[in-house]
Amino acid sequence: MSSPTSAAPVGRPRSGARRLPAATAREEILDAAAELFASRGYAATSTRLIAERVGIRQASLYYHFANKEQILAELLESTVRPSLTFAASLSARSPADALHTLVHYDVGVLLAAPWNIGILYALPEIASEPFAQFRREREALRAVYRSLTAAAGGSALTGEFIFGLAENVIGMRRDLSTLPPADALQDAVADAALRLLGAA
Amino acid sequence: MSSPTSAAPVGRPRSGARRLPAATAREEILDAAAELFASRGYAATSTRLIAERVGIRQASLYYHFANKEQILAELLESTVRPSLTFAASLSARSPADALHTLVHYDVGVLLAAPWNIGILYALPEIASEPFAQFRREREALRAVYRSLTAAAGGSALTGEFIFGLAENVIGMRRDLSTLPPADALQDAVADAALRLLGAA
Repeated sequence: MSSPTSAAPVGRPRSGARRLPAATAREEILDAAAELFASRGYAATSTRLIAERVGIRQASLYYHFANKEQILAELLESTVRPSLTFAASLSARSPADALHTLVHYDVGVLLAAPWNIGILYALPEIASEPFAQFRREREALRAVYRSLTAAAGGSALTGEFIFGLAENVIGMRRDLSTLPPADALQDAVADAALRLLGAA
Repeated sequence: MSSPTSAAPVGRPRSGARRLPAATAREEILDAAAELFASRGYAATSTRLIAERVGIRQASLYYHFANKEQILAELLESTVRPSLTFAASLSARSPADALHTLVHYDVGVLLAAPWNIGILYALPEIASEPFAQFRREREALRAVYRSLTAAAGGSALTGEFIFGLAENVIGMRRDLSTLPPADALQDAVADAALRLLGAA
């Protein structure tokens, strides 16, 4: 994004670090961290490396995030919070229709993230305190799946299977070299959810 | 398993390390490693810690395994190889019956492992060479799911969803404080697979 071979702009910090508007810096830190966590692993990624990748000083990173945990927590929350918010808008629909619509939306969120951060749900670190908010939000989303499934006549286990079916696109993104276009995959998973429910 | 408060047996190595029959040592190393990988994480677990946990010298561990990668590879392969072998015995059945039977068996394998090692499928390290054999075997199992699903009239995506539904018990083991008894869960997942297929 910077052009290191051209003349350095006036006012460029001596260390070569970039100055970015706060919102941009925050987004770039999250994006670089997501790429590094997903490709190298969480344990193997330091805040120093994230700062280097963004092209800012490590001190600037700490201005935006207290530590590496906070960066991961925000990334993880971004995989569930939109669907949780969206679910609140579905109360006027029939349970099966609401479930179909939620699965479609949720799969869209998981596919649209530039890095497949959901693969980090399995990290043992997620059980620790910095990720309590993420765990609560993911459990709240799971509860919505279960309650819509129950309202549509499905069992608690079926609710669990449908929640897993939606999250399974994380594994598909990780494992398959090609995926159908997002909207086709969203349709297919949402339709499959209704088959699990036993609906037509 | 040893009894440190009783008198040390004659011939006990001076360091206090245990001497175990080769097969027992191998099993104990795998079991200790699985527990540590699943609870602390793979990156945070050293071969020294695994050896300490078993109560053997690190040199003894290296007699059985060349490195930490080889231990993880063997653990991962043990989550897919039994189902792959079992799948070869199903050719006399109808595709839907074979699929139901395979899902039931595969879920049983994933639930019976003393540690939930499948959560490590998402490690970035899995893309590296020491895990090539595991990846091949898991892809072979995925191909069986896809081909049985296709033979039973389902789409490639449905085959993928059914494969994901079986592996989803790994996430359920990780996330849920209580699970149904294994045989009930095996039945429920296998029945759900047939619903995904659109069969009765």
